[in-house]
Amino acid sequence: MHTFDQAIRLQALGEHRFAGATSAAYANMVGPFGGITSAALLNATLQHPERQGDPIALTVNFAGPVADGDYEIEARPLRTNRSTQHWLLQMLQQGSVVASATVVLALRRETWSLHEAEAPRDMPPAGNLARATNHRLPEWTRRYDMRFVDGAPPESFDGQLQPHSASRLWVRDEPPRALDFAALASLCDSFFPRIFVRRRRFAPIGTVSLSTFFHADEALLREQGERHLAGCARALNFRNGYFDQSAEVWSDSGQLLASTHQMVYFRE
Amino acid sequence: MHTFDQAIRLQALGEHRFAGATSAAYANMVGPFGGITSAALLNATLQHPERQGDPIALTVNFAGPVADGDYEIEARPLRTNRSTQHWLLQMLQQGSVVASATVVLALRRETWSLHEAEAPRDMPPAGNLARATNHRLPEWTRRYDMRFVDGAPPESFDGQLQPHSASRLWVRDEPPRALDFAALASLCDSFFPRIFVRRRRFAPIGTVSLSTFFHADEALLREQGERHLAGCARALNFRNGYFDQSAEVWSDSGQLLASTHQMVYFRE
Repeated sequence: MHTFDQAIRLQALGEHRFAGATSAAYANMVGPFGGITSAALLNATLQHPERQGDPIALTVNFAGPVADGDYEIEARPLRTNRSTQHWLLQMLQQGSVVASATVVLALRRETWSLHEAEAPRDMPPAGNLARATNHRLPEWTRRYDMRFVDGAPPESFDGQLQPHSASRLWVRDEPPRALDFAALASLCDSFFPRIFVRRRRFAPIGTVSLSTFFHADEALLREQGERHLAGCARALNFRNGYFDQSAEVWSDSGQLLASTHQMVYFRE
Repeated sequence: MHTFDQAIRLQALGEHRFAGATSAAYANMVGPFGGITSAALLNATLQHPERQGDPIALTVNFAGPVADGDYEIEARPLRTNRSTQHWLLQMLQQGSVVASATVVLALRRETWSLHEAEAPRDMPPAGNLARATNHRLPEWTRRYDMRFVDGAPPESFDGQLQPHSASRLWVRDEPPRALDFAALASLCDSFFPRIFVRRRRFAPIGTVSLSTFFHADEALLREQGERHLAGCARALNFRNGYFDQSAEVWSDSGQLLASTHQMVYFRE
């Protein structure tokens, strides 16, 4: 079993309740990497016997620190329509809510379709770029193969303010794993905090709210398989303790698979 | 009392429960304008006696059609930390969930701050532009004064595919009203569906998930007062029944007040 699947594995405890545990393989500086928490929450919906359809939108709110160890997820279908299904989730540890989430699933049909945004251009092939070092970075970064075109996280916090916080990179699970919705949800949080890229200065940070929109259906994810995905990320604004971060994830054939937005707390 | 305040007015029913009603002044083609539903949900948090702080992030999921008439909102604080507070909300009609929402509030402190994105440039002053017509548009559009610089909604659905779906405009409540968090939340849904701008063809549409990030604190909103705000909106992708839409709202002094993202269902 792939490390990722071990990390998001859930055991059904009865109606709407699942048991899981954090994984040392996805440890962040404190507690687990937010992406893996997000994927575990989505997974509760995907494994639920009442599931209807595939993910369209996922919002995860990080309510408090997730401790290393066991957790419980409550996943309730709020409403099932003909083509959409709305879910409400909570992750609990020792009776405290550590995260909440909402999920919208849908049965898609073929319609008129059109890409408005363009995939990042002129990226050298992943094979021509070196894998980013994980030296002194948290454990979860070793679970991704990242190859930066620009906007790599700084090698040292030298305090040199950069002209922007934009990054472009190739990224995939390490070891390689066929892409699915849970892996894509986790990967959407794998972009380093924009404040580190822009400011090159350390600050305690923590995502408070993370929303991901899924543009891909299962067939598109299957086509992508295990190959590197193109990602780009940027911030709009850093202000009085919070900054935003937006990113897109593209297939290597130029299809938009997900767009994702988060608000992140920082302490100066 | 301003029409907007009437439309989002809530009566406390007891612990965590509020009664409200849709307003004919904000009627959409079917049911109420999504922005006013979003503002009413946020308002339940803002009026709640346990509220701590100002909005940072709001996600509203539109679970089913909101009928004209009464509704009830359940607003529960999930967790209160030193500087953040997490909320879970549901809007109910006849015992059915018609919308759910999550809100993150925070007590902000002054920190290092930096705008990365730039406010839209070269927009003629609002006073030099004509107010957009509301001819044949739903009632809620009469509650906003919109002055388009580009990307106005089409005067007719002539089926002429446009090169992009981007819009820039000046917008404020009509009649004018001092800006606050609830008004800003509503305004974040006032950008016309990008599919109409791009495709100039009618299609049944409905927002399924709407996330808004608040970059402004109360002082910034107060500075803005009743004057027109600058808005810009665009889409990344239209695919198999869903498209995304992102927008930013700026003060007339060039400060980013909110950024907002939604996934919208469409039927071909």
